[in-house]
Amino acid sequence: MSKITLGRYMWERIHQVGVDTIFGVPGDFNLKFLDEIYHVEGLRWLGNQNELNASYAADGYGRIKGVPGVFVTTHGVGELSAINGVAGAMSERVKVIHVVGQTPRAMQKAHMMIHHSIGEKPDHQLYNNASRGLRIAAAELWDVETAPAEIDRVIRECFIKSGPVYIFMPLDLSTEEVSADLLKTPLDVSPHVDQAAQEKAVAAINSAIASSKNPAILVDALAHRFNAAPEAKDLVKKLRTPFFASNMGKSVVDETDEMYVGVWNGDVGTPGVKEVANASDLVITLGYLPGDTNSGGFSRQLEDGKAIHINPFSVVVKGETYPNIYIKPLLAALTASLPSTPQHTVTIPELPPPRIPVDKDATHITQSWLWPNFESFLRPGDVVIGETGTTLFGLCDTKFPSNVRWHAQIYYGSIGFATAATLGAEIARKELEDKGVNGGGRTVLVTGDGSLALTMQEIGTMIKAGIKPVIFVINNEGYTIERLIWGARQGYNDIVPTAYSHLLPLYKHPSPEKSYHFAKTKTEFEAVLAKPELSNPDALQLVEVVVDKMDTAWRLPAQLASRGKADVDRLTKAGFVDTYGNWGLEGVSNGGVKWN
Amino acid sequence: MSKITLGRYMWERIHQVGVDTIFGVPGDFNLKFLDEIYHVEGLRWLGNQNELNASYAADGYGRIKGVPGVFVTTHGVGELSAINGVAGAMSERVKVIHVVGQTPRAMQKAHMMIHHSIGEKPDHQLYNNASRGLRIAAAELWDVETAPAEIDRVIRECFIKSGPVYIFMPLDLSTEEVSADLLKTPLDVSPHVDQAAQEKAVAAINSAIASSKNPAILVDALAHRFNAAPEAKDLVKKLRTPFFASNMGKSVVDETDEMYVGVWNGDVGTPGVKEVANASDLVITLGYLPGDTNSGGFSRQLEDGKAIHINPFSVVVKGETYPNIYIKPLLAALTASLPSTPQHTVTIPELPPPRIPVDKDATHITQSWLWPNFESFLRPGDVVIGETGTTLFGLCDTKFPSNVRWHAQIYYGSIGFATAATLGAEIARKELEDKGVNGGGRTVLVTGDGSLALTMQEIGTMIKAGIKPVIFVINNEGYTIERLIWGARQGYNDIVPTAYSHLLPLYKHPSPEKSYHFAKTKTEFEAVLAKPELSNPDALQLVEVVVDKMDTAWRLPAQLASRGKADVDRLTKAGFVDTYGNWGLEGVSNGGVKWN
Repeated sequence: MSKITLGRYMWERIHQVGVDTIFGVPGDFNLKFLDEIYHVEGLRWLGNQNELNASYAADGYGRIKGVPGVFVTTHGVGELSAINGVAGAMSERVKVIHVVGQTPRAMQKAHMMIHHSIGEKPDHQLYNNASRGLRIAAAELWDVETAPAEIDRVIRECFIKSGPVYIFMPLDLSTEEVSADLLKTPLDVSPHVDQAAQEKAVAAINSAIASSKNPAILVDALAHRFNAAPEAKDLVKKLRTPFFASNMGKSVVDETDEMYVGVWNGDVGTPGVKEVANASDLVITLGYLPGDTNSGGFSRQLEDGKAIHINPFSVVVKGETYPNIYIKPLLAALTASLPSTPQHTVTIPELPPPRIPVDKDATHITQSWLWPNFESFLRPGDVVIGETGTTLFGLCDTKFPSNVRWHAQIYYGSIGFATAATLGAEIARKELEDKGVNGGGRTVLVTGDGSLALTMQEIGTMIKAGIKPVIFVINNEGYTIERLIWGARQGYNDIVPTAYSHLLPLYKHPSPEKSYHFAKTKTEFEAVLAKPELSNPDALQLVEVVVDKMDTAWRLPAQLASRGKADVDRLTKAGFVDTYGNWGLEGVSNGGVKWN
Repeated sequence: MSKITLGRYMWERIHQVGVDTIFGVPGDFNLKFLDEIYHVEGLRWLGNQNELNASYAADGYGRIKGVPGVFVTTHGVGELSAINGVAGAMSERVKVIHVVGQTPRAMQKAHMMIHHSIGEKPDHQLYNNASRGLRIAAAELWDVETAPAEIDRVIRECFIKSGPVYIFMPLDLSTEEVSADLLKTPLDVSPHVDQAAQEKAVAAINSAIASSKNPAILVDALAHRFNAAPEAKDLVKKLRTPFFASNMGKSVVDETDEMYVGVWNGDVGTPGVKEVANASDLVITLGYLPGDTNSGGFSRQLEDGKAIHINPFSVVVKGETYPNIYIKPLLAALTASLPSTPQHTVTIPELPPPRIPVDKDATHITQSWLWPNFESFLRPGDVVIGETGTTLFGLCDTKFPSNVRWHAQIYYGSIGFATAATLGAEIARKELEDKGVNGGGRTVLVTGDGSLALTMQEIGTMIKAGIKPVIFVINNEGYTIERLIWGARQGYNDIVPTAYSHLLPLYKHPSPEKSYHFAKTKTEFEAVLAKPELSNPDALQLVEVVVDKMDTAWRLPAQLASRGKADVDRLTKAGFVDTYGNWGLEGVSNGGVKWN
């Protein structure tokens, strides 16, 4: 019986479930088992510039690949530096495995004052405690006999519950040996379906649909997270109802489908969308995540009697709960059970013509002009990563081609996430493309100057790795989203002035001059988008887009203005322009903004 | 009775205890009370590029100023991003106040799915739980009636226990009002001395000293942290014994004193130091912190019967504990109680001549040559910040002028700390200088390419703030400290290649060309050190120092080699040069390295 180290076992198992790249930062309590990565065929190490960035990169990888993003840190210092990225994966239900190299067990037992510790008789498990509320599961390894099963268990949990899990690996334990034969038993990461429960839920859904005159579907983020996007697509195709996306659920089902209405964001939406939604007598949500930033500040309200919620682990039909289901197999069973032609009257949704912004004639780049102009730039197969800030509120209005994968941390909203997540997303996109899945695209990051600053060094990792994302930086002199929320002219919303032309040469980009692009006018921006370097990048591309610091995508002030007149007055007084000319008008006084 | 907001109250209290600068990152749950900073005369906001950097900057500020370093984050995303910096302050007992802007209380009570939350019925206090084991105290504010006293309490705890405290401030609570008269009662942040306990401890110490033939003193970090450096200096001066510093206690008492022996690091020290220490029949430690990296890997062993430990809250005389004391007043009382002339024979310590490194004739910069050459560059009043890595092991051998303040995170050892801490340290140094304290110096950072990468963007904050530290970057192509520990040639110890000449222009430094310096040879390094820009910087200075990636300060391989022959063989095989030619010789075989 051949033997392998426990470290090797862990990496083999992780590779078996589809992970080909490990992120992280080396440290003296993980180095020895990092060696084992090089022994696993098809698995590679990609080091990050710091641990928070590593956690974001793993999150980005997990989102695109549908398998866990995996990253490694060292005891305490590294582990804690990454905890915010783990919490983000928990909030947004992204599969992430955080492997922590812990101090050897003898040091732990003796409470030795090893560097990275706290106090005189340090408890080396102190840092483990910090993440207890922020993870799905943890393998707190101690005994080589039970460790392989523990590793298997948390990998399975990561898939089934879709969220971050920890593997705590004491350094000395990682070099102990286990039987290589253990690897021959495939890891089961699929849910075990309770067929009776599932059939009951499907029957209830079918019954509700059968009695509906005009059902509709809202596609939301958790459908994606639980790897049910293909099943969501099939359902939408077969049911032929008008369908909507939430901000976070955008692109899970193709927006090019004629039945797609738009982003349904409650009261804060493009004209006509809310009206179509409210006209439906039955809204079926897929993986609903009704956080404030994903529901127009809670203004998208669904009455129990008119809703079916297909959640990750339960279905709620008009207020009645059907537990013990899993969203992915349930959606497949539901679609299979539907009649081959829809029973309701199929009406292709129509929207009023788009509004004309008041600043349409500006020659400089305005946000009202910018976001729709991404539409022609994007193409099928692209991964689009948006950063929290005005960008997110802008990209909501950009209609994506088919097969685009859109990601942003809309609920957790940790600025800096998008840049480092882009590293992981592009690595994952390329790995899929190399396997013949979803080819022909790029990874396109749209971030802001304020957010980029937090995690900027990860652009260095991308350059070293030789990957080729296209990065747009909206340079508007600071935290514009915060200027809208409070303190429009306060110094705390200013950031460090940055000359982005030096960013690529700083990290020894192979062709920094021709890969850095700048646009301040609409003409310049159009010329940049037309460049072949952006269509088929041979290296990372950086596009600096200058917009006025008080300019904003309309959705953000609209959401703020919907809170009432005080906010309208504050925004107006601060000098923000209402792109569509409705602030302070009658529609606002009752706490709602009317946009048409 | 005039009223002020609770936010204003908090800032006034913080300013009253000597804090003049607040670090942090704005976020929507702290913006409103950031406004109040601008209303406190003499207090200012200095925003950081991310939250981890803010926590490090606050730590650096706290170390130099002896009052808390204060920084602000927002609920969840910011709070967790900074947690590693808080843990570092806990480990190294640095006064830090972390103010967290929390969601409004109504949102908390309703468990609203506000952005930055986790789950469907989110507990907004989830993140508060994560730092419970990593802080001295916390004000979990909820009620405006009790909040002022709670704020006062944790500020006092921060001083008395010397470590990080939290103030959790729900956004809506920060705008409620309290009486301005509360500010008239001064905040008491001094320990309340139990005179009887202190007298008993002093008597026991005196008695032990009186019966000693040749006492000695070891000055360690906690003496500094509990603001007892002046008292330690007075004790050393009056007792006239040979004295030592630990790695972390270096510079707490001037190294120019003729009674100073050197850094006593157990078996891993410069020749002669250990011998002087071991010859003493009574070693008095001041603020002992015997972590592995501060004790030559635990090789500095003090027998109970030959030691007095003057700890922050207790004294241990030859094994007998005297509790209920505070180190600062106790040291003052002890010194006052000593006879005016020493009772023991005063012998000025002498050390053997320095060893000659085998690579002394190299023309390129070697680590054996580099570190002693900092001696002539430094001057009284300088703050010197060292980064974890070969730098720390090198600067141990650099003799500092009087009145230098040396800081490094030697116990906690989180790489990236030093760069961001330099921001806070230089701000604090300048504030003290402006008040006539410790003038004439600079802040000098010595970091490595691997560590700088983690927190590099904080150099941008320094440039924006117009401060003028001198920053040395040891560029040795990666994590050299890790190459020594494991995986000398492994890819995981490589980092992102970086062209440092672009770093200053990236952040719009006013004079990037003449403020960036480069040295690869000894001649070049000497020429750089002689430049007037470095003596009297008119802007931030960056010096890139290229050394071979397999070159190292001798202390690090010596410490590793002291573990036994396997490590000696590993180091030799990996190609590391033993600068003083002792590896593999007879002194090593028993687990100790003999250096002369």
